[in-house]
Amino acid sequence: MTLPADHPSHALRAAGSPMLAACRGDGGRRHTPVWFMRQAGRSLPEYRAVRGSGSILDAIADPALSAEITLQPVRRYGVDAAILYSDIVVPAAAIGFGVDVAPGTGPVVAEPFRTEADLDRLVPLDPKTHTPYVLETVRRVVAELTPMGVPLIGFAGAPFTVASYLIEGRPSRTYEHTKAMIHSRPDLWHELADRLADLAIASLRSQILAGASLLQLFDSWAGALSPPDYERFVLPHSAKVFAGVADLEVPRIHFGVGTGELLTLMRDAGADVVGVDWRVPLDVARTRIGERHALQGNLDPALCLADWPVAEEATRDVLRRAGDHPGHIFNLGHGVLPETDPAVLERVVDLVHRETDRSR
Amino acid sequence: MTLPADHPSHALRAAGSPMLAACRGDGGRRHTPVWFMRQAGRSLPEYRAVRGSGSILDAIADPALSAEITLQPVRRYGVDAAILYSDIVVPAAAIGFGVDVAPGTGPVVAEPFRTEADLDRLVPLDPKTHTPYVLETVRRVVAELTPMGVPLIGFAGAPFTVASYLIEGRPSRTYEHTKAMIHSRPDLWHELADRLADLAIASLRSQILAGASLLQLFDSWAGALSPPDYERFVLPHSAKVFAGVADLEVPRIHFGVGTGELLTLMRDAGADVVGVDWRVPLDVARTRIGERHALQGNLDPALCLADWPVAEEATRDVLRRAGDHPGHIFNLGHGVLPETDPAVLERVVDLVHRETDRSR
Repeated sequence: MTLPADHPSHALRAAGSPMLAACRGDGGRRHTPVWFMRQAGRSLPEYRAVRGSGSILDAIADPALSAEITLQPVRRYGVDAAILYSDIVVPAAAIGFGVDVAPGTGPVVAEPFRTEADLDRLVPLDPKTHTPYVLETVRRVVAELTPMGVPLIGFAGAPFTVASYLIEGRPSRTYEHTKAMIHSRPDLWHELADRLADLAIASLRSQILAGASLLQLFDSWAGALSPPDYERFVLPHSAKVFAGVADLEVPRIHFGVGTGELLTLMRDAGADVVGVDWRVPLDVARTRIGERHALQGNLDPALCLADWPVAEEATRDVLRRAGDHPGHIFNLGHGVLPETDPAVLERVVDLVHRETDRSR
Repeated sequence: MTLPADHPSHALRAAGSPMLAACRGDGGRRHTPVWFMRQAGRSLPEYRAVRGSGSILDAIADPALSAEITLQPVRRYGVDAAILYSDIVVPAAAIGFGVDVAPGTGPVVAEPFRTEADLDRLVPLDPKTHTPYVLETVRRVVAELTPMGVPLIGFAGAPFTVASYLIEGRPSRTYEHTKAMIHSRPDLWHELADRLADLAIASLRSQILAGASLLQLFDSWAGALSPPDYERFVLPHSAKVFAGVADLEVPRIHFGVGTGELLTLMRDAGADVVGVDWRVPLDVARTRIGERHALQGNLDPALCLADWPVAEEATRDVLRRAGDHPGHIFNLGHGVLPETDPAVLERVVDLVHRETDRSR
C-alpha cells in the first residue's frame, strides 16, 4: 500500500519541511533541520511540571499527557521534528510480556526471556487493541503539528536492543546473556528476533498510518556487537523491519550508539538516514556511508552541560564536518541529558538554523 | 636510566619470551602469546577460595595474597604473561585522595574532584612509602615467574580514566561531569590530568624497577570521547606517561574500550602495542595503525560464555584476521567476565598456542 492522499506527510512535503527534505538529500531545503533525541523529557521544566512521578508506561498510556509532552520541545525550541513520547519497550509491555520501566534504571523484566517457552509470551501486536493510546497520541500531536509544518517521527526499538532488555532483564553493560543466546542458541535467537521484528513493524506501521511522517529505528546497543556478529545475527532482522514499512515510503532513520564499525551495515539494512554518535566525526562517517544517504548527528550531549561557548564551538564543528551535503539532520549523538539547561539547546537550534539558512 | 643488568626482562628476552617478542614485532617468537585481561579474578575457583569478602584494596595491600592471585592464572592456563593483581585507583587511594572500590559497583569517591582546592588532595606518589606492598608483590611474583620464562605486566590507569572516577565519584555511562570540566575548566582539567600522569609515571616506574618487564596503560573509558577531544585534552597527558617511562625501554601497551576512532591517536601517544576491543576486527585495526606497531586483542569476552565451538570459531577468526604479522598478542577485547568457565579459557590458550606454533 501507499500512504492515503490525505496523510499529513504530503502536505508537509509540499510545505517544504526541512526534515523531510534532508532525509532525501534534497538540496532545496530552507536550512539544516535539527531535533534532539529525548528532547521531550526531564531537562524541560514544563515536562517536570506535568509528568508526575508515576511509571513512564502510565504516562505514555495517557494520550492527553503524551501529546502535550511530545509538543513541548517543538514549542520551546522550534525544532524541525517532534518525536513521539513513548518507549521502545511499549509494544512488548502492551502484549503482556511483563516489562516495566524502573525510574532511574530503565526497562526491567521480572522473568527474562530464556527458553522456547518464553516465545509464547510474544504474541502479535494488534495496535488498535494493544496500544490504542499510542494511535490517539499520534493523531492529537499530528493535528497540532501539521499546521506548523512540523513532521512527527514515529519509532520502534530494533530487535537486538529490545531483545537485550528481554533477555538480560535489565540494562546491561556486557549483554552477556544476549550474546550467549545468539551464539549458543541461534535457532531460538532468530525466532525471538523475528517476532520482535514483527512487533516493530506492526507498531511502526500503525504510527505512520495514524499520521507520523517518518520513523526512527533505535538499535541503541547494537554497538556492543562485532561487525561479523551484527551482520549475521542482527542485520537480517532490522532489514526485515525496514522492508516491512518500505511500501509506506516514509523516510527511515537507523540509530545506535558506538556504531562506528557498523555504519555501512546499518545503512544497508534499508535506512535512508544513518544516525551517528559523537565518536565518529561526521566527515569520517560520510566517507563510510557514501554520498547517497543522509546522516543524523552528532553533537556530544555532555558538551551541552558546559558553558555556551563550548556548545557553540562544538555545534559549529559538527556543521563544518557535515559540509555542503544536503543530507544532514543535526542532532545530538545520543539523548539529551536530564541536567541540560534548555537555554543551551535553544541556542543550538538557533545557531544551526542561522548558519545553514538558504532563504537569504 | 636503563634497566639494571640483573633486571628479569633481560633473562626473559634471552629465553625467548613470546610476549616480549610480539610486543616488538619479532617474527622469531615460538607462538602468538596469549593472556587475558582480568585473568586473575572471580572466574577462578582458586581465586574465590583465597580472596575472602573484604575490600579489594585490602587484598591488594597483602603481598602474599596478591602474589598468589597474580600467579593463579599462569599456573592454570599457561598464559604467556601475568598481570599484577591490583586496581587502577590504587595510587590515588594510597596518597589519601579518598577512593574506595565498592563490591559490585567499582571505584567510588565520597568527595569527588570538583575545584582547585581538590588539587591539594593529589600529592606526589612515593611508591616506597605509599605502596610498598605493590613493590613487594611484584618482587614475589617475579621471583616465581622468571624461572618459568613468563614476564609480569605492570599497569596504571591513564589520566582520563582515573580522572573520570575522581570527578564522577562513581562509574558513569556518560562521563558528563568529566566532559563538562574538560570543556568549561580546561585549565583545571589539564592540571588534574598532569598530576594523574605523574601518579601513573611514579607507579609504573616503581613496578618496572621492582621487576615488571612490560606495562599496560588502561584508558578504559577513553572511547567515550570524540577524536578531536581525545587529541586535544587527553592524548598529551597519556603521552607524558609513556614518555616518562621511555628510558626504561620496556614494551608499552595502550588499551581502551570502544576506541575504534582513536587507535591511531593512542598509537601516537607513544605505545608499542595498541589494544583493541572486539568492535574493530583486527584486520581493520591493522589498516588503521599500520605495520610498525603490535596489536593486542580481541575476542569478545561474552563469547567465552557460550559453548566451546562458539569460542573456538571466534578464536580462529581473531587469528585469521591477525594474519601473519608477528606483532599480535592474543587477548580478550575486555576483561574476563566473572561467570566465565575457566575450562573455556584453557582451551583458548591451547588453541592459540597450537595454531601459531612455529617450533614444529
